[in-house]
Amino acid sequence: MKKATSSGARTRLSPDDRRRQLLGIGLSMLVEKPIQDLSLDAVAAEAGISRSLLFHYFPTKTDYYDAVVGAAVRRVLRNISPDEGTTPETALQQFIERFYAQIERRRPFYLALVFGTGAVALGGEGVDSLRMTAARRVIAALSLDESTLPAVHAWTAYVEDRALYWSGQPKAQRPELAAEIEHCAKTLHALMSLGT
Amino acid sequence: MKKATSSGARTRLSPDDRRRQLLGIGLSMLVEKPIQDLSLDAVAAEAGISRSLLFHYFPTKTDYYDAVVGAAVRRVLRNISPDEGTTPETALQQFIERFYAQIERRRPFYLALVFGTGAVALGGEGVDSLRMTAARRVIAALSLDESTLPAVHAWTAYVEDRALYWSGQPKAQRPELAAEIEHCAKTLHALMSLGT
Repeated sequence: MKKATSSGARTRLSPDDRRRQLLGIGLSMLVEKPIQDLSLDAVAAEAGISRSLLFHYFPTKTDYYDAVVGAAVRRVLRNISPDEGTTPETALQQFIERFYAQIERRRPFYLALVFGTGAVALGGEGVDSLRMTAARRVIAALSLDESTLPAVHAWTAYVEDRALYWSGQPKAQRPELAAEIEHCAKTLHALMSLGT
Repeated sequence: MKKATSSGARTRLSPDDRRRQLLGIGLSMLVEKPIQDLSLDAVAAEAGISRSLLFHYFPTKTDYYDAVVGAAVRRVLRNISPDEGTTPETALQQFIERFYAQIERRRPFYLALVFGTGAVALGGEGVDSLRMTAARRVIAALSLDESTLPAVHAWTAYVEDRALYWSGQPKAQRPELAAEIEHCAKTLHALMSLGT
């Protein structure tokens, strides 16, 4: 596949690359303003294309918004997935560590996506699909029983909340990341031994 | 204080009652549409007052939106608070039971408030203030140490997620509510014994 050689205007991109470029522009704008305030004119201008060419890729405003939010959710899920083929315990540690890293590195983006400006498009169900996919991956990586889903699903909300809390504190006041990871891993084990 | 005797138009209300009436109309509309789509004309019409009188109570659109979302958060917190003067264990059970009841009875409202249409106004910090207040009440009711805050805060996210999951299932497939309450209470005790 042809790669874009420049982010400048008037570059001739393949349809796939153009789509990706337009979603990338939307993703970066999502941090600054509510999705319903994203101006398609501004997106087209930044991409160096006409508004009508933008509508060729995304027939309606809603199509574009949904695609941007969907891309954001997929990006988060990709970033926090553990490696394939590791031991269950390593996979668990990686999941927690990457979830914390994602939230710390891009806190306003995450808040916007799940609780704020992106959440309108997501609605409750979009948040649910993020947690559901994350929970299913944890269950698969740890070979847990399917009946653990409600507990593992809610545990992802637990880890998310702690990571938001942790990353919201000044660095000097935060507990060590390693202690946070250990606590979250122990919490999952405790939940499994409580029964679901 | 004079009580409104009718919800109809042209009733003469005290300023406090009028304010309450206008917030109540906003709260009920919040379930159906994103807060930024609430039409102040529609709110004024439903209250039977002019748009300019509405602006007398809330000088800007943003003032009105913030007041509606703030009222929604306070309503949820009031609904889920345990009784004063009960034993710690009863307070914990009441908190969990009332949180489940709030979410089950008004699921779309809750989703709109925390993850969806109300979340734009709330932002991440508004969600945080709901969880923070709930967590502080649990800590007070159970006489827990202040250092448990990150764990109790994240535990409220755990209970919220489980209650959303539980109430989203068909009634015939849901576990008993009593089992859910017991699980959530045990989870808090397990977290406390893990250390924070």
